[in-house]
Amino acid sequence: MLGQPIDHAGLETLPLDACLRLLASVPVGRMGFYSDGELVVLPVNHVVDGQDVVFRTAAGSKLSAAEGQGLVAFEADDYDPETRSGWSVLVNGRAEVVYEDTEIQRLSRLGLHPWVTAVDRPFWIRIRPTSITGRQTPA
Amino acid sequence: MLGQPIDHAGLETLPLDACLRLLASVPVGRMGFYSDGELVVLPVNHVVDGQDVVFRTAAGSKLSAAEGQGLVAFEADDYDPETRSGWSVLVNGRAEVVYEDTEIQRLSRLGLHPWVTAVDRPFWIRIRPTSITGRQTPA
Repeated sequence: MLGQPIDHAGLETLPLDACLRLLASVPVGRMGFYSDGELVVLPVNHVVDGQDVVFRTAAGSKLSAAEGQGLVAFEADDYDPETRSGWSVLVNGRAEVVYEDTEIQRLSRLGLHPWVTAVDRPFWIRIRPTSITGRQTPA
Repeated sequence: MLGQPIDHAGLETLPLDACLRLLASVPVGRMGFYSDGELVVLPVNHVVDGQDVVFRTAAGSKLSAAEGQGLVAFEADDYDPETRSGWSVLVNGRAEVVYEDTEIQRLSRLGLHPWVTAVDRPFWIRIRPTSITGRQTPA
């Protein structure tokens, strides 16, 4: 099998299908966005819908970023401290709030259950990627 | 014991000492920064030095962000899918390259060993926090 290309940091770059598979393999990723002039990176429970990342949120800074149709980042990774190996996937794209009832009903069937249930998370956010890149430690 | 305050998302906010302890408890965090007009979020092996986050890097976008003395974010988290619980800590601050030999020698003794060794990571980056915030799922 041909090896994957190596980037300047010595990491293997991953093809798109591997990025999407890995993104969907973990229950938590992190959305990066600007809020009030500060860079914010916060974890969310997400699912992958096609090539989009979808999650639920309460009113707050993540919702505001999506209402502004802002450019955001979404990162997921996993690592094994024993073997000192891991991967990461970075999605850049535009966040938007999902308003259509039929779409919300469809998304509701994707098995996304926010972990924190004390506060309702009525808003669905979709990140439409403009780029998806990934890398992993070489075997 | 008094409970911690709860934020709008239903998460407990963490005091500073807990944030620093949790930051130091995981080997990997994620630096968020702007590079060529795109928001980048990439994992790094880090250590905590006082209230600063320190890591090593090769020449690349993380180094460029630090050379620009840019405002960056650093996020660490951990979660347990079984109990659906977790925490996250967000550092905002200014990244800078460490140039002083004596300081680099001191940092070298903090036990930081990058996982990817195929490429040398000769540059030490320090993030000096302007704010550190953290939250966790309620017990």
